[in-house]
Amino acid sequence: MSAIRTIRLDLQYDGTDFVGWQIQQNGRSVQGELARALQQILQEISLVPIGSGRTDAGTHALGQVAHFQTQSQHSSEQIYRALNSLLPPDISVSSVHEVDNCFHARYSAVSKRYRYRISTVKAPIKRRWVWTIPRRLDFDAMQEAGELFKGSHEFYAFCNQHPVPKSFSCTILDCNWKICDAELQFVIEGNRFLRHMVRIMVGTMVEVGLGRRNSNLSIPLNAKLDSNDVSLATIRKQAGPTAPAHGLCLVEVNYGDQSC
Amino acid sequence: MSAIRTIRLDLQYDGTDFVGWQIQQNGRSVQGELARALQQILQEISLVPIGSGRTDAGTHALGQVAHFQTQSQHSSEQIYRALNSLLPPDISVSSVHEVDNCFHARYSAVSKRYRYRISTVKAPIKRRWVWTIPRRLDFDAMQEAGELFKGSHEFYAFCNQHPVPKSFSCTILDCNWKICDAELQFVIEGNRFLRHMVRIMVGTMVEVGLGRRNSNLSIPLNAKLDSNDVSLATIRKQAGPTAPAHGLCLVEVNYGDQSC
Repeated sequence: MSAIRTIRLDLQYDGTDFVGWQIQQNGRSVQGELARALQQILQEISLVPIGSGRTDAGTHALGQVAHFQTQSQHSSEQIYRALNSLLPPDISVSSVHEVDNCFHARYSAVSKRYRYRISTVKAPIKRRWVWTIPRRLDFDAMQEAGELFKGSHEFYAFCNQHPVPKSFSCTILDCNWKICDAELQFVIEGNRFLRHMVRIMVGTMVEVGLGRRNSNLSIPLNAKLDSNDVSLATIRKQAGPTAPAHGLCLVEVNYGDQSC
Repeated sequence: MSAIRTIRLDLQYDGTDFVGWQIQQNGRSVQGELARALQQILQEISLVPIGSGRTDAGTHALGQVAHFQTQSQHSSEQIYRALNSLLPPDISVSSVHEVDNCFHARYSAVSKRYRYRISTVKAPIKRRWVWTIPRRLDFDAMQEAGELFKGSHEFYAFCNQHPVPKSFSCTILDCNWKICDAELQFVIEGNRFLRHMVRIMVGTMVEVGLGRRNSNLSIPLNAKLDSNDVSLATIRKQAGPTAPAHGLCLVEVNYGDQSC
């Protein structure tokens, strides 16, 4: 019997026409398309790749990472070519590598980096990758608001609570707004992210940029669950709305020096 | 009666879902969408804007220019805002200016610049803007082939001959390939372009890049109609295939110092 091999895939996808990363009953998922192609290549009926984490419907990826285990003898190069040939035009594989068997796309990840793009002018060519807000945004106030996210916090107000996460604690290693012509980009790196977390952060900072909210986000950021009457739903309301999914892109998953 | 005013529009569009610039019986055109929005704003039933030239179905524009004449009193700013609000997400107006009445988007144009993008890797995020050729392309040979286009030539072999153009003579002011990671960009500026001309140039140079054709394109470029038996269709066969429309973008229309 052949030895078990672990294969790492680095992926890009255009999230526009997917229900998200995760396989779901109704709709086209990235994981589902990938599983179907791998099953065909490797002739392993139940093979399903494991991703570093989910991405929402409409959210893109330039650096998603997934892995799977197999006993097949196909070389990385063969898998790379076959996948890019079989996968639809909105998914591609940037690289295929055989890695140590202790590598796990999700559990070995040290941090992830996301980018959120906003255009302050109507931009037909990039409209599928940017949230178009044809208004003046106060960049300095948004930058100031973003500073407060850095470090470790309980992000009660900045997540979708269905389902309720096991822990709300995340560490933001770095985050910054960059401005380039009529485009604002928010780049954030953290050890983990809750569901919709980046999108709610951006939605809240855009309220700041539009002058609808003070740049001091310490109230929603320090909102705490206590044993009394404060519900999660009440806390969520202290932050702003969820920014559209299509402005968001998973840029990179970092695995540190050791991948296990 | 109010004076006639000439209004210049600078436009961007994502050509993916259009039958092209020109109004056609069956299908959604850029000119048609623009005419509908302008008619609604200015309440002029038969107003149709004139473009600098057609773009093919699927071809994009970052710098298309159009104009129209009106007796309305709407300011440029009002037209700008109303157009961007009424136009669909795949067309935007970058600027609206009142210009001299002798300005004509087509006849006043001095030159046009196009860009053609090729990706040598599968690239989901930009697949609507690049021709994906997952093969090694000989960049130096393509660059060498492109050099020959510079100057004035009769482009018999490099155009779609339906309908037959009045003149095949065009002057290429500049053209160059640029390479950036896995993307090759061909930028070309000329005084005028025939139908499919840039796409056939690119299709021919890609044959060179794939090693299927010598980089010396003097045979198709010097092909001449003579009074004997050479037909246009025979000459066309000396050049390569027409590259896909979606890799092409009209980047800029130049009107020189004087716009009339």
